[in-house]
Amino acid sequence: MSTAQLPTLNDRLALSRLISEVENGSQEGQTALEACFPRSGKAHLIGVTGASGAGKSSLVNRITQLIRREKQRTVAVVAIDPSSPFTGGAILGDRVRMRDLAGDPGVFIRSMASRGELGGLAHTTAGVVQVLDAAGFDLVLVETVGAGQSEIDIARLAHTTVVVESPGMGDDIQAIKAGILEIADILVVNKADLPGIENTERALRANLELGYNGYLSEKTGHGGFSGSDRKKETDVWMQPVIKTIATEESGVPEVIKAIDDHRDYLKKTGLLELRDRERLKDEFDRVLRHALMENWKKNCRAEDVERLMEEVFARKRSPSNAVNELLK
Amino acid sequence: MSTAQLPTLNDRLALSRLISEVENGSQEGQTALEACFPRSGKAHLIGVTGASGAGKSSLVNRITQLIRREKQRTVAVVAIDPSSPFTGGAILGDRVRMRDLAGDPGVFIRSMASRGELGGLAHTTAGVVQVLDAAGFDLVLVETVGAGQSEIDIARLAHTTVVVESPGMGDDIQAIKAGILEIADILVVNKADLPGIENTERALRANLELGYNGYLSEKTGHGGFSGSDRKKETDVWMQPVIKTIATEESGVPEVIKAIDDHRDYLKKTGLLELRDRERLKDEFDRVLRHALMENWKKNCRAEDVERLMEEVFARKRSPSNAVNELLK
Repeated sequence: MSTAQLPTLNDRLALSRLISEVENGSQEGQTALEACFPRSGKAHLIGVTGASGAGKSSLVNRITQLIRREKQRTVAVVAIDPSSPFTGGAILGDRVRMRDLAGDPGVFIRSMASRGELGGLAHTTAGVVQVLDAAGFDLVLVETVGAGQSEIDIARLAHTTVVVESPGMGDDIQAIKAGILEIADILVVNKADLPGIENTERALRANLELGYNGYLSEKTGHGGFSGSDRKKETDVWMQPVIKTIATEESGVPEVIKAIDDHRDYLKKTGLLELRDRERLKDEFDRVLRHALMENWKKNCRAEDVERLMEEVFARKRSPSNAVNELLK
Repeated sequence: MSTAQLPTLNDRLALSRLISEVENGSQEGQTALEACFPRSGKAHLIGVTGASGAGKSSLVNRITQLIRREKQRTVAVVAIDPSSPFTGGAILGDRVRMRDLAGDPGVFIRSMASRGELGGLAHTTAGVVQVLDAAGFDLVLVETVGAGQSEIDIARLAHTTVVVESPGMGDDIQAIKAGILEIADILVVNKADLPGIENTERALRANLELGYNGYLSEKTGHGGFSGSDRKKETDVWMQPVIKTIATEESGVPEVIKAIDDHRDYLKKTGLLELRDRERLKDEFDRVLRHALMENWKKNCRAEDVERLMEEVFARKRSPSNAVNELLK
């Protein structure tokens, strides 16, 4: 392909169009992704996640403003709204977020409406992030709503995962249940001016303590200390808990410092490369699974599949049994 | 296999063990699932979902109590906590939930700790539900935490999806963003004694109206009326919005009635069979994808894969390009 199709920071309209093609899964989008691949791998990918209402959008907004004001790095934001097709949430979101950052050529903001297909969101997001990475943005922030699978998917995509909590988002047991401490590299307790902030912070720290005592993840490099062996080691990342009031910038410089520190830590320990390899391996597996399925579809006999599926629907044969029969 | 391995309502210890085998993906679990399959398909599968802190557990608890008190049906509950391995959330959850229902032989409660793998949770849950279905429970309630993909997965699994909201779970825009109205068959506004209940209810109803005016899903059978054509038709399900105070049973009988009405509606319109077929087709696809991948792994040359992956890691070759090369 010609280099004209490669995205750059400066041609924002072309960049927007290219991202739309990637989102739509068009042939042009696929071609562009292929062309972007050799140029990607330089940006710091940061996931920002947490329950709805915790103030993620405000925090992302402030982080972006401060980075642009204090340093000379460029920032792209990908905001993922699991929005309904009939509310037009993503479009509204774009406008709300754009207001404070409009006109800055070093900032690019994109809202994506998530749709149903299993794994589809993570795949499309990875593609969009790859385009922004190849375009030359220094930081790419991916903001996701929701708990559970989507957080885990984003954590796999990001180098650094920031989990945002806020007081009054449900009781403390609920906070513990969310199971997000495992994926958090940095914990932010936002809305620090609200009552209940101490409880939220205490609950988080208590659970981190539990984690440090009982759990060591080689993959993430989170620390695992027994009580008698408690010391700060340079090759272990101690997840910081940072209180912020995103609406007035309080604590936001500390979050940016933690993000940069985490990047340094990942580089120094070789985890940056490891996480990159894991992500590429995941992508390879996904493409391979898809290709194998397409090959099979081309070669199978439709009438055999149909007959077996009728037996499955009648519960005379299980799905596994039908697959075994077809692959014989 | 011997019929002794088939689960029954009465041997709870055997049932628990079988579910553990299914959760662990052991060979025994697989064999049991195969044996269960012809006996499954009778239970009413109900998903209960919504943001954390909305009071889903309390509601599920009350629904179960009332069904057991007023009718002679049996109930199984599967509670999915995306809990951390170090908090032991699932075990705690079991104890909290068990208290009110302990000793009732017509109730079975199981907490599952969700783990990372993409799509893994939905798969394991489907297996556990199949065992409980085959064991003869009349209703199987699956409670999930979180927004986004996990809700959509559960909606695919369930015949009837109950979405629980509550006042003060973030502002109204957040509630709209959640995009859950599309998957909801029944909407519950819990904690109806809290301030803000009217706002939450109004926001939900306004969005439902939007949906009825602009959106028709053939799959779910949700209504699609233009302004001039607004009437209640018997073959269209109008999603009810029900206010509850789960801690004191208020509104819970109405939720149970709506669940039963929805079952009748699905039966009458043929959607029950359609949803069942879709679920079995999904399961078939999943097993097929897995089997194709395993076959490929057996037949590929490891050194080729390794060499190509190194080129991918060096960004000399994209994952897609590597797959194409391998499948040549």
